[in-house]
Amino acid sequence: MNRREILGSLMAVTTTGLASSSAASAVSLAQGVQAAATNQLQSGPPGSRGLGSGARNLITDVPGLKVGQSQSEDVQTGVTVIIPDHAAVAACDVRGGGPATRETDALSPENLVQKVDAIVFAGGSVYGMAAADGVASWMGARNRGFALAAKPGVPPSPIVPTACLYDLANGGNKSWGENPPYRELGLEALKSVSTEFKLGTAGAGFGAMSGGLKGGTGSASVLASQGYQVGALVAVNSMGSAVTPGGRQFWAAPAEMNGEFGGLGSAKLTAPPENYGRAMRMRPSPRTNTTLACIATDIALSRVEAQRIAIMAQDGMARALRPIHAPYDGDVVFVLSTAQREAPVGVSRAFLTAQIGALAADVLARAIARAIFEATALPGSKIPAWRDLPGSG
Amino acid sequence: MNRREILGSLMAVTTTGLASSSAASAVSLAQGVQAAATNQLQSGPPGSRGLGSGARNLITDVPGLKVGQSQSEDVQTGVTVIIPDHAAVAACDVRGGGPATRETDALSPENLVQKVDAIVFAGGSVYGMAAADGVASWMGARNRGFALAAKPGVPPSPIVPTACLYDLANGGNKSWGENPPYRELGLEALKSVSTEFKLGTAGAGFGAMSGGLKGGTGSASVLASQGYQVGALVAVNSMGSAVTPGGRQFWAAPAEMNGEFGGLGSAKLTAPPENYGRAMRMRPSPRTNTTLACIATDIALSRVEAQRIAIMAQDGMARALRPIHAPYDGDVVFVLSTAQREAPVGVSRAFLTAQIGALAADVLARAIARAIFEATALPGSKIPAWRDLPGSG
Repeated sequence: MNRREILGSLMAVTTTGLASSSAASAVSLAQGVQAAATNQLQSGPPGSRGLGSGARNLITDVPGLKVGQSQSEDVQTGVTVIIPDHAAVAACDVRGGGPATRETDALSPENLVQKVDAIVFAGGSVYGMAAADGVASWMGARNRGFALAAKPGVPPSPIVPTACLYDLANGGNKSWGENPPYRELGLEALKSVSTEFKLGTAGAGFGAMSGGLKGGTGSASVLASQGYQVGALVAVNSMGSAVTPGGRQFWAAPAEMNGEFGGLGSAKLTAPPENYGRAMRMRPSPRTNTTLACIATDIALSRVEAQRIAIMAQDGMARALRPIHAPYDGDVVFVLSTAQREAPVGVSRAFLTAQIGALAADVLARAIARAIFEATALPGSKIPAWRDLPGSG
Repeated sequence: MNRREILGSLMAVTTTGLASSSAASAVSLAQGVQAAATNQLQSGPPGSRGLGSGARNLITDVPGLKVGQSQSEDVQTGVTVIIPDHAAVAACDVRGGGPATRETDALSPENLVQKVDAIVFAGGSVYGMAAADGVASWMGARNRGFALAAKPGVPPSPIVPTACLYDLANGGNKSWGENPPYRELGLEALKSVSTEFKLGTAGAGFGAMSGGLKGGTGSASVLASQGYQVGALVAVNSMGSAVTPGGRQFWAAPAEMNGEFGGLGSAKLTAPPENYGRAMRMRPSPRTNTTLACIATDIALSRVEAQRIAIMAQDGMARALRPIHAPYDGDVVFVLSTAQREAPVGVSRAFLTAQIGALAADVLARAIARAIFEATALPGSKIPAWRDLPGSG
């Protein structure tokens, strides 16, 4: 079948398949799909109709969202805070075998609180969760948070789901005794809250490692042809590698936009032994290896729709990192909906969810590659950054 | 860092990282990793020490496992039954949004039954689950199954977890009224139980479709350097595509062994618009789209270890099919342990689980590509098989 025939059969199936849509709206959906399939790539401003990255190529291309970061060069660790302008519907999917998380149970769809006030990623493993103490205290003092009893003198309860990665053995100065720095790093991160933030060796990924290379913080965005945004932010501290064995090409290459991580394309891989050898190059220790991700979109989502998108976004980790989701990994995906845009007309909710989920997986894969691509080695560390690798053409 | 330096740092981390291992065993583990990294690919008989596919390149390379299949050309559907020689520890991970399953709750680690007697995959959506009726009746009559009261006259309860895919709209003759054919197809499949079975348009994948191409049944195996086997069987009926947009190369190419799906290698992808356009080429309808997989190994696993391997194996779906795990997909991974081999000495259980999980993801990706590669178009169908695509170089 050629493209037209494929689209024709798609239209036919769509027309019969979506019980909740009229035939007319199904046709407009198929036309939208056709437009998406034929559009040129554009890295345009919000509002452009082509598929491409958003204006900043950061999660903050999603309207209604800001990011703050802090880091300590002495401790070789850091914190990233993602703050929606207003409390936002959220979901969480934990797939690693060694997660360090806080306030994730509150996100179950059947539970009371429906929205979150911030998402926090931190180094420091179990100590890092104190970053959320700083953020929650700051927000509560400003009367932001879920209020069960909204009275003077009763602070609200800011909902700050948090996940941490293990950077305790990266060579930084961890002799903090009973006073780990994470509460202060959480507060410090709030001072830089903005739509612009640094990638690579910054924030929660400051002290991270990834498959023998320097890890880091990454972000990317995609502007859907229907005009909505999907963005990702990630702190990559993975056991698995983001690059092909013996090479510099990223596993995420098929999703790359505008040379955002070097434009090297996919490796022409024909050497499985290296591949499998690489799969064995694991550096496991408890909670050592974790990829923390947040997906955001401006489309108004329900909690359960956000949950499905979190599930689909994990596939972006699978495509960008090999292996992933091991017992040693603490891999987590959060999803935030800033709800600044209603769903496109004539699209079933399930189809829209599938579409956002598919975009989320790819934008997360891109964010992971950008984290590694942008990272710089820590002073005195033997772990090289990607940019320090000899060129492989 | 060169390979030796990487392995050196790996050894160092391994030595300090595995609290439950002695330093000596950690060193032997690191040596094993080094051996894995430097071994040549071998497609050898069981017992060879190189990494490669098993002798048959089928799930039945795992000792203690057989497969039977049946199909109806009239109905354009089929059934695949995976039968361990003895009841086997199993796990199940459901990640699709529209699963059709039976006896999967029984597999939760906290529940009573610890082992299963067979795994059944079928077409037919909800009707297909009757295939398990046939299989369970056959086994019960032969006194196979879980016996709560082992007395004469009290049949045992064969545990037959089952998952189905949707092929009701593929053009076959579904005018079965109140008598769908699946119970009989289940019994029929038992007649062909063997270590050899057909791939492509056969068994549960007989009537399947995959991203606009003919779907099918696939299988593959890998012989780990430590001598254990990991195999996969899959029925691919996915919304997402197994091939790169506009091309014939498989997404699973980085894991391919011995040209098992054409040896075309990875596409050098630099055209995201096509990629994203492709991600939009979805043909969703309720339960239309499902990838059913079973991983097997001869290593003796606990239920919870099998669960982690099921989770990691889902990443093979993510790497072989784009998109995957959508609301319309009924994606399921089962894991079976035939327990014919003890774990390698000196390897922590968590490390072994990670290793099997990493191999499981790749062997499942290969099995998915083989399903599409081996499939032939159904008579009279407008859905082309992969082999009918014009060559693209």
